[in-house]
Amino acid sequence: MDEFKLIQYICEQQDKIQLKHNNKNKINIPIGDDAASISIPNDSECIISTDTLNSGIHFFADSEACDIAHKALAVNLSDLSAMGATPAWYTLNLTIPSLNQSWIKSFCNGLFKLAKKYNTTLIGGDITKGPLSITITAIGHTPNNQAIKRSGAKPGDFIYISDTIGESGYILDQIYNKKYTQDNYKNLLKKLNSPNPQVVLGEKLRNIASSCIDISDGLAADLSHILNKSNVSATLYQDKIPISNILKQIPKKEALTHILYGGDDYQLCFTSPADYVNKIQDLEEYLNQKIYKIGEICEIVNINNPSNQPEIFLNTNKNINKINTQGFKHF
Amino acid sequence: MDEFKLIQYICEQQDKIQLKHNNKNKINIPIGDDAASISIPNDSECIISTDTLNSGIHFFADSEACDIAHKALAVNLSDLSAMGATPAWYTLNLTIPSLNQSWIKSFCNGLFKLAKKYNTTLIGGDITKGPLSITITAIGHTPNNQAIKRSGAKPGDFIYISDTIGESGYILDQIYNKKYTQDNYKNLLKKLNSPNPQVVLGEKLRNIASSCIDISDGLAADLSHILNKSNVSATLYQDKIPISNILKQIPKKEALTHILYGGDDYQLCFTSPADYVNKIQDLEEYLNQKIYKIGEICEIVNINNPSNQPEIFLNTNKNINKINTQGFKHF
Repeated sequence: MDEFKLIQYICEQQDKIQLKHNNKNKINIPIGDDAASISIPNDSECIISTDTLNSGIHFFADSEACDIAHKALAVNLSDLSAMGATPAWYTLNLTIPSLNQSWIKSFCNGLFKLAKKYNTTLIGGDITKGPLSITITAIGHTPNNQAIKRSGAKPGDFIYISDTIGESGYILDQIYNKKYTQDNYKNLLKKLNSPNPQVVLGEKLRNIASSCIDISDGLAADLSHILNKSNVSATLYQDKIPISNILKQIPKKEALTHILYGGDDYQLCFTSPADYVNKIQDLEEYLNQKIYKIGEICEIVNINNPSNQPEIFLNTNKNINKINTQGFKHF
Repeated sequence: MDEFKLIQYICEQQDKIQLKHNNKNKINIPIGDDAASISIPNDSECIISTDTLNSGIHFFADSEACDIAHKALAVNLSDLSAMGATPAWYTLNLTIPSLNQSWIKSFCNGLFKLAKKYNTTLIGGDITKGPLSITITAIGHTPNNQAIKRSGAKPGDFIYISDTIGESGYILDQIYNKKYTQDNYKNLLKKLNSPNPQVVLGEKLRNIASSCIDISDGLAADLSHILNKSNVSATLYQDKIPISNILKQIPKKEALTHILYGGDDYQLCFTSPADYVNKIQDLEEYLNQKIYKIGEICEIVNINNPSNQPEIFLNTNKNINKINTQGFKHF
């Protein structure tokens, strides 16, 4: 198998999943030219997100190829979802140390399974030699002026998250500190590499959410991006923050640390006006999915805050404490 | 400097070059959200190209950061040009082993100098830790149905190239075989990293070129992509193929090898109907640039060609020889 046969193989695997094409994901020139050509639907904006995953940094080197592929596409779909965008196309830059057919087969399985779920088409990319690294650029669209920005949160808005969070942080902690059994290790890796992008929720949040972000670096850090862009502060209600079944089995304080500072969850954190509570309830019913109201946006207060920076407070019912907003630092 | 300060620094460097925005390169949501939002001009297609450059593979590890950045953007602009697209936006995935301020400064200088030349805006990306690797995804547009494909070449069309080629192949040969003086090495690297994407020519070739490709893997390999997609063969006239001043100083046969098989030139190879010769001459005058007619498209002949594959023949005025069409293999 050489580079061109590999590209041909990837195209054939995509053909097998029989994506459906219409005016919402039109392709004029597919893979196989110097560049691809797509048409954005009428009266729509083109939304573009890109993320690189490097072996040993964004996934463990012994992860399954299908899981790496899933994660690489999922994190980009997650970014599009945080904008309320409908995903439609993506490109793939795959850097691999060698051409290993069974690895490629597994990679394609993971990639196209997720791509099929959201009917999104691979339109180009390249394959290069080097240390394992995957860059995906996801392209989607929203009707004009309906993309959800980080900057729209207003005092009085409620803060929501799309599911329990913190488990990825807990798993990372288990792996780094070797607190796992060999039997369980593969399951932990799989769980870590299996984020479930909130594509349908993201689309439905257009005109409902005032701001939105996906939680990749931890709730505290990602919520603080919304606060900084919106120039507001936030109060989280500790007893409203949902705790997953797995995190219920560890001390509450430790669980809270994973929830606030653990990354890699890829759930959505969004804000919405208080009088849209009914719309959120309708969404929960429509999606058959619980959405958790965990706090409220407030004005920036200048008590003990001379530089008037946005802050996050945690209301424990006993105290209200300002919390650290630093996320994971890559360097 | 941390990751977020680095992103801020990059944005500030872009602000300094004062790109001009209009309906042809509209940005609704710039860098700093989960994804960017752009608007494609009315009645236009969105053209997308992406390429990864890895240290030690696509550029020598001791290349200057400004040159690496130039090359990373240039090769993507070159792909857009081969489609006849107007570049407008790009994303940058930068994987670096550490945050080195002077390296970053030089990288930004190279990147934004070229971006300014073609008024193209950085709209997103990410910065990750790992072995040096740069992925750029370039986004542009053409009026509907005017993108130039590889598949449009017809028998009787003339074959053109946008400048002399082969010097990059010659330089690579000098470096690999240590045929250079230490004084000259930096100049050789710089030349190798300074492709000049044919953006204006590409745009002007809409409705003139019947097919187009940029020469990254050598004339023979890249022309054969046009032939395969168009299901035609080609004859090149050896005495019409231009030889650069540098290649004139080496034996003719060696020069021809670099011209046919050397990669990394990033000039355009295109075909155009024979009765458009005047249009090509007008283009040469308009661009003040020589365009070289080097051959002609012909039907696939079935003599000594049982599988009816497209072929390239070289007419030396004495003989007509079939040439090898294999390009550089990455694996």
